[in-house]
Formats: sequence, structure tokens, C-alpha cells
Amino acid sequence: MPPSSFPTESSITDYLRRISTIPPASQVVVGIGDDCAVYRPEGSTEDLLFTTDMFIEGGHFLRDTHTAADVARKALARGLSDIAAMGGAARFCLVSLCVPKWADGEWVRIFFDTLVADATSAGAVLAGGDLSHAEKLSCDIVVCGGVPRDRAFLRSGARAGDEIWVSGALGGSALGLELGHGAAWQRHLHPEPRLALAAFLQTNIHPTAAIDISDGLSLDLQRLCLASGVAAEITAPPVFPGATLLQALHGGEEYELLFTVQPDSELPFQFRGLQLTRIGIIVDGPPGAVRHNARPLLALGYDHFLTGTDN
Amino acid sequence: MPPSSFPTESSITDYLRRISTIPPASQVVVGIGDDCAVYRPEGSTEDLLFTTDMFIEGGHFLRDTHTAADVARKALARGLSDIAAMGGAARFCLVSLCVPKWADGEWVRIFFDTLVADATSAGAVLAGGDLSHAEKLSCDIVVCGGVPRDRAFLRSGARAGDEIWVSGALGGSALGLELGHGAAWQRHLHPEPRLALAAFLQTNIHPTAAIDISDGLSLDLQRLCLASGVAAEITAPPVFPGATLLQALHGGEEYELLFTVQPDSELPFQFRGLQLTRIGIIVDGPPGAVRHNARPLLALGYDHFLTGTDN
Repeated sequence: MPPSSFPTESSITDYLRRISTIPPASQVVVGIGDDCAVYRPEGSTEDLLFTTDMFIEGGHFLRDTHTAADVARKALARGLSDIAAMGGAARFCLVSLCVPKWADGEWVRIFFDTLVADATSAGAVLAGGDLSHAEKLSCDIVVCGGVPRDRAFLRSGARAGDEIWVSGALGGSALGLELGHGAAWQRHLHPEPRLALAAFLQTNIHPTAAIDISDGLSLDLQRLCLASGVAAEITAPPVFPGATLLQALHGGEEYELLFTVQPDSELPFQFRGLQLTRIGIIVDGPPGAVRHNARPLLALGYDHFLTGTDN
Repeated sequence: MPPSSFPTESSITDYLRRISTIPPASQVVVGIGDDCAVYRPEGSTEDLLFTTDMFIEGGHFLRDTHTAADVARKALARGLSDIAAMGGAARFCLVSLCVPKWADGEWVRIFFDTLVADATSAGAVLAGGDLSHAEKLSCDIVVCGGVPRDRAFLRSGARAGDEIWVSGALGGSALGLELGHGAAWQRHLHPEPRLALAAFLQTNIHPTAAIDISDGLSLDLQRLCLASGVAAEITAPPVFPGATLLQALHGGEEYELLFTVQPDSELPFQFRGLQLTRIGIIVDGPPGAVRHNARPLLALGYDHFLTGTDN
């Protein structure tokens, strides 16, 4: 029986997973519920990853605090980060843009110049899109990535005994939103999708599971554990200078990679200057249960659909 | 030098085509400027088509006149029609939905139930998406289609001597918008993407060029001619019962197929009850110049970006 209301994003997602069945012969090999959908083209040596992210004035960003370049960069970064989370390389992107009256030709030009520059740096071509007018600025960016066939990092592969790792230091984006200036604000404005790390992990270490930290470590680790049917025990993650432990545990929009590896994996403690830290271990237990320093860690991370505000 | 303002959609599109160059080794074989982008996966027997369409309350539809089912159906139909225009079969779709306060759980449920039902009928899986809140309802639908390798119908292949054909009778959608009721209104609300006709043309007749009539015969034929570097001479197209010739020539949101074939093609005058009509011929001349009954036909069709209202 369908629910009569959908209080959270996950309640809609659960409903969609139920009604949107994938036929056995479909080339869609992963549907709703991971960072990207996975499509296997007939005869292809690689699987394709697809992610789509809406970015809306007043909801995801404010006109006063975000320039045209900031909007383009951040909207694209969210999609690129999803590709990295699945172990992929960026191939192309599509952009739908709705332009309100306040955004003039110069705004539109800077938006697209930035988008094309950032996409090109990431190895992606701007392949198409859609343009229209609206009262509020909104854009939807689709990114397509490629992975060797059957090698996408899924959320569902973590097993008891696997080590839990995280890239970077956490809490900077939440701190930046609080302060509105300085290094933390720059981190909030300009997340760096971990595509190079993803390529390294894809080639050298095959993680058993992965997700990007878009909504907070506590919530995203819970999602990974739920998808894998396991529990987790962690210690404190590295904390961004000036941020609190709570910001590091629950702050969203980090776009760092959270991944699990088999216990015998030889992972370095840094990759091209980016810190890599083992923060815990996957254990048997109630699916989705996460303990931090031996106490239950509530998934206080950010549900975009529930709150509908930036964080 | 970039323009300081973008008065029309085509001025932005021209700018994007200039700045978004596709590297020679890219698997993106068709970028900005056709109904879909075309991606050729490594080793694949088929090319993939991608189209994205934003659908926004107040811009593309009104809350008072469009139910949740209408919004889902029409937003998806626009993407499916682009796949048909390129000669493809639908494979999967992605949906980004922004929900305002007035749209309750029931609205969201009907939206997704309709979307999944229509996608399934068209052969597509709902593979993923994004959910958030916003003041106005908006959705962006991406559809992926497949065509045999190198067999996408492009806008650019028409040559002098080719016959110009159109499916169906035109002007019904514009008439429906004027009347707000009856068969024409139903046609405006519920366009039928011509996927079956596309499959027939793909297998039996390879059109030299094709486009779907989303913005009016005059404007879409001009676009096809511009892309092909040719001119066209047409007579009156079939007119939807009750519509005027002007509505048939310039009315948008028809989602019929407009295509060109070599003069020796043996095309039937109907396909599964759908009328197919030869309306003219491609000629040498100034690129984009279209003549109707030997007089210049102005491209009065609909530029969504220019007017920003429904039609």
C-alpha cells in the first residue's frame, strides 16, 4: 500500500524502489538507491554511471552569497563527487538551466564558462542541455561516468571485518557555513570531487563499498551500512582545523570519500597530499547501527528533502 | 568575443557550441545542437542518446490546469519525443523533482506512479533521480535511448532533392491551449511520442534527417535546414480538425516527427493509423530558408527561452 505522505527523502526512495522494478533483461544493472545508476551498454567494455542533481536558488544556494561561478562549480562538483564515489571517471555532463530576470547575459556567460572549464578539468564534455526562464534560478546537472565493467564501487558490498576509511578532514563545510568567511567558507563553496583518489582506488585497491559524504558522516555511513546489511564501529574522524567533532561527525557537503576495504588491503595514509584515515571497522550487528567510541552514533546528517535548506 | 547578453535560446546555444569543444578522441559523437547528445560506449554495438528537459510550474505548466499525472506524462513525453526524433528506443530515465508545500504525498505518489507506468510502456526503466524542496514545483527528466551504432537520425543530413515528411496532423496543441477543453486540449495535455514510428523508420527507411516538432513546424524545419545547410519548399501540412493553418504551421508542442528521406524511399501514407504526409522537398538555397506555397515562411515558432511561457 503506498504511503499517503512522504515525510522524508528515504520514504520516497523506498517507495520508488518498490514500484520501479528493473526487468531481469534490463541493461540497468543498478537502479535507485546508490550514488549513481549503472547502465551496461550492449557489448561495451565499460559500465556507465549516471547521477543527477538539482541546484535551486533559495534552497541549495543564495543569490547574495553565491556568484555565477560558485553556482556552476558547486552544482557540477556534486555530480562529479557521485561519480568518484562509484569509482568512475567523468565522461560527459548535461545541464538544464532556468534563468530568472535578475541573471543577465553576463551571469549566464560566467556560469557556462566556469562549468565548461571545470568539466574539462575533470575530463568531461558538456554534451547538451536545456534552457528556459523561471522566477528562481535553478539548474540540474547530469554527469555520466565510466568504470571498467562490473567494477563500480557500490554501497552494498561492505562485510564484517572490512576496514572503514575516509579521505580528508571533516567538518570544514559546516564550519564555513557558520562563519561565512575564511578557509572553511572556501571549502564550503568549492568542494573538490575526489576523482583522482577514485581512479587510484579503482586501479590499486578495490574498495568493498563506497559513498561520498554529501549529507554527513553519520548519515552516509548509516546508508552504506544499511545497503550492506552490516553495522560499524568508528573512532573520531580527522577534524578540519577550527571545526568541532560534532561538525565532523554530522556536517554535510564534505564530498570526501567514505569507503571500506578488505582487512589485508595496503592503503597509504595519504594520496597526493590528501590524508587517508582508517576510522573504524565493519561488524556484524543490526543493519545501519553505527557506534562511535563504543556509543551509538545517531544519524544526524542532513536530509535535503526533510529540511529543504542549505547546510 | 562572448556576447554581453543572450536574447534568445539560439544565441546561448551558439555560444555553448563555440566554448564546449569536443576533443577528437571523445566518445561524445554528437554534442550540443541536436535533439539528443550521442555517446558511443567503448566496444558497444549501440550508440546512446541523451536528452534533458526541465518542466517548471508557472513556466511550462500551471498548477490549476495540470494534475500530477499530467505533469509526469508531459515532462516524460518531451524526452521520449527527442529519443524518437533521433530514431532511438527508450532505455532508462532519471528524474529530479523539487516539491513545494502545496504538493502533498498524494501528489508525489501519483506523479511517480504515472511516470513509472508511462516509462514502462515506452520500454524505459526509472533508474534514479534527485529529490528536494522548493517554492515552485519543478522537475527535470533525462531520457536515455539506444540506436544501432552510427544510425542516429541527425538534423544535419538533409540534402537537396530529399522529400520532407511529417507525421500526424498539426495545430491541435495550439488549438487546445486556446480552447482549454475537448479533443484539442487532450492533445495539448497528452502528447504521444512517436517511438513506434521511429522504430519503423530506423528499420525500414533510414531518414536522412529528423527533428520532432516541439516548437512549431516553421521553426523546427528552419532548424533542420540550418543544421543541414539547405533550404526547403513546402505546401500546407495536414491540419488538426478545428485548427487554423497558422496554428498548424507555427504551433508548438506537437511532438510529431518531421523528417527527410531520399527521393526513392518507399514510405507508406500511414503507419498503424498515424497519417504520414509528404509536405515538400529540400532544395539548394540560403541555409534555413523555408518557402511555403512559394512564399517565404517566417520561423514564428516558439522560442521557450525568449518568451518563457507555455504554448
